Amino acid sequence: MGIVVKLSDSRDSNASLAPLFALVEEDMARVNQFILDKARSNVDLIPELARHLIDSGGKRLRPMLTIAASKLCGYEGDGHQWLATAVEFMHTATLLHDDVVDESSLRRGKTTARLLWGNEASVLVGDYLLGQSFKMMVDVGSLGALRILSDAAAIIAEGEVMQLITANNTDTTEDDYLAVIEAKTAALFAAAAEVGAVIADRPKSEAAALRSFGRNLGVAFQLVDDALDYSGEQSELGKSVGDDFRDGKITLPVVLSYRRGSADEREFWERTLKQGEIGDDDLQTAIDLIAKHNALADTMERARHYGAIARDALAIFPDGDVKSALLGAIEFSVSRPY
Amino acid sequence: MGIVVKLSDSRDSNASLAPLFALVEEDMARVNQFILDKARSNVDLIPELARHLIDSGGKRLRPMLTIAASKLCGYEGDGHQWLATAVEFMHTATLLHDDVVDESSLRRGKTTARLLWGNEASVLVGDYLLGQSFKMMVDVGSLGALRILSDAAAIIAEGEVMQLITANNTDTTEDDYLAVIEAKTAALFAAAAEVGAVIADRPKSEAAALRSFGRNLGVAFQLVDDALDYSGEQSELGKSVGDDFRDGKITLPVVLSYRRGSADEREFWERTLKQGEIGDDDLQTAIDLIAKHNALADTMERARHYGAIARDALAIFPDGDVKSALLGAIEFSVSRPY
Repeated sequence: MGIVVKLSDSRDSNASLAPLFALVEEDMARVNQFILDKARSNVDLIPELARHLIDSGGKRLRPMLTIAASKLCGYEGDGHQWLATAVEFMHTATLLHDDVVDESSLRRGKTTARLLWGNEASVLVGDYLLGQSFKMMVDVGSLGALRILSDAAAIIAEGEVMQLITANNTDTTEDDYLAVIEAKTAALFAAAAEVGAVIADRPKSEAAALRSFGRNLGVAFQLVDDALDYSGEQSELGKSVGDDFRDGKITLPVVLSYRRGSADEREFWERTLKQGEIGDDDLQTAIDLIAKHNALADTMERARHYGAIARDALAIFPDGDVKSALLGAIEFSVSRPY
Repeated sequence: MGIVVKLSDSRDSNASLAPLFALVEEDMARVNQFILDKARSNVDLIPELARHLIDSGGKRLRPMLTIAASKLCGYEGDGHQWLATAVEFMHTATLLHDDVVDESSLRRGKTTARLLWGNEASVLVGDYLLGQSFKMMVDVGSLGALRILSDAAAIIAEGEVMQLITANNTDTTEDDYLAVIEAKTAALFAAAAEVGAVIADRPKSEAAALRSFGRNLGVAFQLVDDALDYSGEQSELGKSVGDDFRDGKITLPVVLSYRRGSADEREFWERTLKQGEIGDDDLQTAIDLIAKHNALADTMERARHYGAIARDALAIFPDGDVKSALLGAIEFSVSRPY
């Protein structure tokens, strides 16, 4: 799920995100201030633990979507900054809980909060951030935005449970996998974009278009993220190759390779992902099998399909800087090097 | 929704379906007999009206999926023939109800039952066929298959209602459209294929694979069907160009053209599809706009994406005649000339 690229790196390497960064720069400066403010608490542990993750260099794509979407809809006010902060808190809470569930030790290249402060603290600080997130939404006072974001929170939780069930299950179909990523990733992308139209009081058609844009962008983004996990290129991006493999996560490159593989190959995937017996050479074997079955290229191809849908969703909006910036985010998502 | 090609035509023009036809020929002869038997009733109107549609030359792709899926799973018995009959009845019931809702006057080139016998009779005979369908499923005695097919029946009905809501609504997004066709078309394709594994007592992984195959094939099939409605080629296939346009149906070629179009073009779509003011030259204008925005080609491109997923879903099954025949059905669906 996590955003893994440092802002500074992405600026250098990803020209297609530059217009979005430029567009939201001022607003995001305030969002970043709100994030620090709202992670405060008299209980020292809370800001300490929260800031460990908050300062770790995610590129904050989700709140940027909220800011840009509200700009696309001509919103004037500061509610979008608060909603963007709420979106980022919701995402951060999910990451904290994810790391507990996955027993992860590294996130964005840093030791996870759960290893430093314990699982219980990570769960509770996640809940605290989620609570803060809802408080901010309530303060904004848009019942519509509140409904969209609280629906998303429920769906994300559902997606996490679905992921727990599919973990280590090599029988997972592509449809199952898609259902998981639609819930755990795309739902928040969709909500983050949709609320931009809602606080700007734009017609339903624009809210639906932004929702569709966000949802399909989210699916494309996660597909590529899952491809990067088996790709040499991603070590340059601050993530280590094979994390998903070691966690027994069933992502599309694995689904395709397992299904297209021979009986022997399926035995390999079952031993490593189902039984969790992973030897020194197994990651390389996994990468070789994925290459043999063209599974990374086909995962990217599937991502481009969702990218195309996201692009068409935006077509109803007038051309201009904001729309170009959002189209750039799609371009970035489907063309990350793998 | 409807299958529009006569069996004899498809044999000539669609080589990729030939292996499937050959494979299921004997079983389908029995299914066709069951269909005639079970459409009987002491109330003369029922068989008369039912046979009007039943004899009108659908190619019975859905029951063929049930037969082929059960063969792929090594099923031996005759339950698959009854389930296939139940599937076709469910589909026929939907068509009868569809024609009432859409106020259609032609189906597969013939005057619709509702024009000949009235709307009430069409609705009730549809219900009768649905009832017969459930009776046959119960007789087969597989609770699993019964659950899958009755779930599908509920989802199809939901899809029809969704379609009713999106009809004439030019704001429909691609996601909305996909939700409609997943419910009204893909759900029955999915169930038709899945029950083949279920009555053969195969493991869940095979049922899920067949379900995924059927679902994605169904989406691809419907996408292409919707493309054909704006294509000159389809007149050769027994359907008349522009039916969906005259009905104000919002299908993907329209969704893409509307969203990609200029303000003037959107006004055109709103006048014709929303207000239903359709003049003599408007169909040609619609076809020209769709061509201008590359919307048929892109609809076919989206269909190929789902075809690719359907293909991968089948990959876990051993190679052989049956698998080839099902792969041929995908090939047929995504490569119909448009």
